[in-house]
Amino acid sequence: TLPDTSLSPAEPKGKRPPVLVDGVTLNGPTLDIREAESFLRDAMPIIMEEAVRKATDVKEKVCEWRSPEQLKEVLDLELRDGGEANPKILQRCRDAIRYSVKTGHPRFFNQLYAGLDPYSLVGRFITEALNPSLYTYEVAPVFILTEEAVLKKMIEIIGWTEGGDGLFSPGGSVSNMYAVNVARYQRCPNVKELGLSAMPRLVMFTSEECHYSVAKAAAFLGIGTKNVYVIRSDKRGKMIPAEFEKQVQRGALPFMVNATAGTTILGAFDPLEEIADICERHSLWMHVDACWGGAALMSNQHRHLLKGIHRADSVAWNPHKMLLAGLQCCAFMVRGQTDILQRCHSANASYLFQQDKFYDISYDTGDKSIQCSRKPDAFKFWLMWKALGTKGLEERVDRALAMARYLAEEIKKREGFRLVMEPEYANVCFWYIPPSLRIDYDVAPVVKERMMKKGSMLVGYQPHGDKVNFFRQIIISPQVSREDMDFLLDEINTLGKDL
Amino acid sequence: TLPDTSLSPAEPKGKRPPVLVDGVTLNGPTLDIREAESFLRDAMPIIMEEAVRKATDVKEKVCEWRSPEQLKEVLDLELRDGGEANPKILQRCRDAIRYSVKTGHPRFFNQLYAGLDPYSLVGRFITEALNPSLYTYEVAPVFILTEEAVLKKMIEIIGWTEGGDGLFSPGGSVSNMYAVNVARYQRCPNVKELGLSAMPRLVMFTSEECHYSVAKAAAFLGIGTKNVYVIRSDKRGKMIPAEFEKQVQRGALPFMVNATAGTTILGAFDPLEEIADICERHSLWMHVDACWGGAALMSNQHRHLLKGIHRADSVAWNPHKMLLAGLQCCAFMVRGQTDILQRCHSANASYLFQQDKFYDISYDTGDKSIQCSRKPDAFKFWLMWKALGTKGLEERVDRALAMARYLAEEIKKREGFRLVMEPEYANVCFWYIPPSLRIDYDVAPVVKERMMKKGSMLVGYQPHGDKVNFFRQIIISPQVSREDMDFLLDEINTLGKDL
Repeated sequence: TLPDTSLSPAEPKGKRPPVLVDGVTLNGPTLDIREAESFLRDAMPIIMEEAVRKATDVKEKVCEWRSPEQLKEVLDLELRDGGEANPKILQRCRDAIRYSVKTGHPRFFNQLYAGLDPYSLVGRFITEALNPSLYTYEVAPVFILTEEAVLKKMIEIIGWTEGGDGLFSPGGSVSNMYAVNVARYQRCPNVKELGLSAMPRLVMFTSEECHYSVAKAAAFLGIGTKNVYVIRSDKRGKMIPAEFEKQVQRGALPFMVNATAGTTILGAFDPLEEIADICERHSLWMHVDACWGGAALMSNQHRHLLKGIHRADSVAWNPHKMLLAGLQCCAFMVRGQTDILQRCHSANASYLFQQDKFYDISYDTGDKSIQCSRKPDAFKFWLMWKALGTKGLEERVDRALAMARYLAEEIKKREGFRLVMEPEYANVCFWYIPPSLRIDYDVAPVVKERMMKKGSMLVGYQPHGDKVNFFRQIIISPQVSREDMDFLLDEINTLGKDL
Repeated sequence: TLPDTSLSPAEPKGKRPPVLVDGVTLNGPTLDIREAESFLRDAMPIIMEEAVRKATDVKEKVCEWRSPEQLKEVLDLELRDGGEANPKILQRCRDAIRYSVKTGHPRFFNQLYAGLDPYSLVGRFITEALNPSLYTYEVAPVFILTEEAVLKKMIEIIGWTEGGDGLFSPGGSVSNMYAVNVARYQRCPNVKELGLSAMPRLVMFTSEECHYSVAKAAAFLGIGTKNVYVIRSDKRGKMIPAEFEKQVQRGALPFMVNATAGTTILGAFDPLEEIADICERHSLWMHVDACWGGAALMSNQHRHLLKGIHRADSVAWNPHKMLLAGLQCCAFMVRGQTDILQRCHSANASYLFQQDKFYDISYDTGDKSIQCSRKPDAFKFWLMWKALGTKGLEERVDRALAMARYLAEEIKKREGFRLVMEPEYANVCFWYIPPSLRIDYDVAPVVKERMMKKGSMLVGYQPHGDKVNFFRQIIISPQVSREDMDFLLDEINTLGKDL
C-alpha cells in the first residue's frame, strides 16, 4: 500500500548548505517564477491590444509593409552574448506585432485561412502554457482524449458508419504523405521493411488541379514525381473520371488515387462517387484531400459537394482553414476498424511506449505518428466546437459561401471586373481590367504591390493554365461583412484604375 | 502613381440595405470582436493562475491522475449540435488545465523537455494570436527574418565557417527525415523524379542507441527498415567506429550515417571526429542527430562532447528540449553555401511562389519545406535568446549538467540506489532497490504508478538491452533546485520501500 504522505514542499532557500559542482552553485531555483509571471502580466496587454484588438479592427491596416532590408534594420535581429532587459523585450514584442501581417483582419483574403476565433485562441494559449506532447496518456491525458473525441465526431460527419482511426498532423501536406504511406503499405506490407527498391514500380494518380503537396509526398516518400500520373481536369477544375480510368490501364503497379475536395485555386470538387467506382474496379486506395473543402461537410446545404466521401479509404481535412481552429489543425483519418496507422508507422520505442504500464496503453497513441513530439492540435478545435456547437460551425460555413456568391454577383455587375468562373465554394477568381488596358491586362501583380504597400487588404493572385494572373478572393472569417466585399472591388479599382 | 487615400472604414451597420443570399443575411460581421476580447480577458487570469503560476509551483502536484475512463466522465467530451455559454467554456478550461500534466513543474523529469521560460511563452502567445504561416515573406515578414537570424547563429555555433542553410521542422523526427531525403538526393539526384524503384538498394547506418525516428524515417521515405544497418555501441552507448566501417563494406549503395549527439536513454555522444573520417573515406553523408545534445554547443565547458560536429553535412537540433524554447522548436541545417533544400523539396506552386512579385523572392522560403503551412517556431526562441543572451543560455546548460552530476554523486552515497552508469549529459540513469528485493528488482513500474497517482513528480523508466527497468532522470529546467534532486531520491524511497 502507498504511504499517503502529503507533497513535501521544497526546502526554503539557504536551509541546506550550498553545493558547488563544476563551478555552479546548486541551491534553489535560478528562474524566479514570480518575475516570470510579472513579465507575462506586462506582455499580455500588449498582445491583447496589438495582436488581437487592433489586428482585427477593419479600420487598421492589414499589414505595415517594409522590404526585407528595411525590416532587418528596424528589428535588429542579431543574437548577442548579453541579454536585454524586460522593457526592451516588450518593445521587441510590439515591433514584431506591428510589422507582422494581421491574418485575423477582416480584409486578409490571401490564403486558405483567415480570421480569429477567441475560443480556439484560448485553447492555444492553454496548450502553449502547459506545453504538452501528444505521445502518451501519461503526459497528455486531456489532450489524448480530446483528440479522440474530435476524430470520432469528424469520422461520423464523413459518414464512415463502420468507424475509423486517425490523428492530427502538422499540415495537410503531411496528411497527404500519411495517405501515400498507408496506401502503399496496404498494397505491399513488406515495403516498410524492404523498401521500394525491392518493389515493382508503384504508381499513383491525382488531378492536374491537386495541391502541390501530392508531388512533394511522392518525392519525399521515394515514389518519384514521375510516378504520379496526372489526370486532366475539366474546365471547372474537376478530375475527369474517364481520364482517370484510362491512366490506370497504363501499367506498373497502381496503388492509390488522390481526389481533391476543394482545389487550392479554383475551389473545385472532384466527382467522388465516380472516382470511388473506378477505385473499386481496380482495387485502388482512395484518398480524399479535403483539407480545404472538408468544412462543407458541416453544412447540410453544401455537403453534397463531397457526395461519396464516405467511400474514401482515407481523408485529410484541416479545421484550421475555413473552420478557424488556428494553425495548425489537420486531421488525417482512415476508414474502418483498423490498426493500419499503428502497424504502418510504429517503431515500438521501449523508453516511451512501455508495455508494463498500469493503465490501458491503447491510449498511448504516439506510435501511430511519424512524429515523436506532437502538438495537441485537436484541443483548440474541441474547445471552439463546444462553444459554438455543430450548428454554429455550420452557420459559419453557410455564411462564407453565401458571401462568395454575393461577391461573384457584384463582380458581374461591375465594369472592369470579370469572373474566371462561377464559384462553387469560397474561392472567387476574377480579373480586374483597368480602363486603359483591354488586351494585355496582367495587372494583378501591380495592384497587389500597391495594396500591400498601402496595407488596406491582402488578396492572392496567380496565373493558371493559359490564363494570365487573376485574383483569388478567399472568404472565410465571420468578421467579414458584405461591406468588405464592396470595399474589395472599390479598392482594386482605386488602386488600379490609372494603370 | 498610387492614389494616397486613407483606409476606408467599413460602412456602419445598416447603412446599406441588408442582402439575403442563400438564406443568409450578409450585412456586418457576425463575430463581435468586442465580445471575443471580453472572453479572452476572462480566460487569461485562469491561464495565468492555473497553467502558469500553480503549474510551476513546487508545492502543487505535477499531475492529478485519473484513468482514461474516469477522465472521460469528468470532461464530458462529446461534441453536440448546440453551443455552450462562456462560463461553461471557462470551466472547461479550468478542468482541462487541472487534469493535464504540468510539464513546467520543477519535478517533471519525464521527457527530454521541461520547464517554462516566460520569454518563449510570450513569443508563442504572440504567434498564436497573429496566426501566421511561414511560407512567404508577404504574409510572414517578421517570422521569415527571425528564422533566418536564428539559423544563422546556430550555424555559426555549430562551427560551419562556410555557412549553411536550414529550416525549422515539426519535430526532431521530421528533421531526421529531411536528413535522409537530402542525403539520398545528393547521392542520386534523379530519385526525386524516378523514385527508389529505379535506384540500386540504398543503405544507411546508425547506432543501436539512436532515436527510433531513424527507423521511422527509413520506413516512411521508402528506404525500408532492413536497409538501416545498425552499428553496435559501446557500454556507454557510443557508436563503435570500427563497427561502422565494417558495415559500410557490406555492399549495396551506402549513402549516409546518422550519428547521435545525446542519445535518448543514456545521453551518450557518438565519436563525431572518427565518424567523419569514415564518411570522408567512403563518401557518405554525415548527419548528426543533436536534437537532444545540441544544447551542449552553447557551453564552452561542454561543447567538447560534440567535437567534430563542424564536419557534419547536416545537423538536427531541438531548442525546445534543454533550451526551453517550447514545443516545437526544431532546426534542421545543412552545411555550406547550398541550395540543396530548395532543389530537393521544391514543387514550385505558382499560386504561392509567384515569380513576378515586387520584392526579393529569395525570402519566400516555403518551397524548401515538405510542409505548406508551417508554424513560425524560431520566433519564440529568438525572443528568448534576445532576453537571455548567449551567456544566459550557456548558464542554463552548465547548471543542468552540474545538477545531473550532483544527483549522480548522491545516488552513489545512498543505500538502495545504483547508477546504471556515470552520466556525461543530463540523463541520470539509476535503479532503486527496495530493502526486501535484492535479486529481482524490477520495481520502476510500480514506483512510477505510485508517483503518478500521488502526483508528486514524474520520472521516466525503461528497460535497456539486458538491463531491467531503470529510472531515467532528466534535468533541464532552471526552476529545478538541488533540493528537488534530494526530494527525488527521498520520494522514490518513500514510494517504494515497502515493495
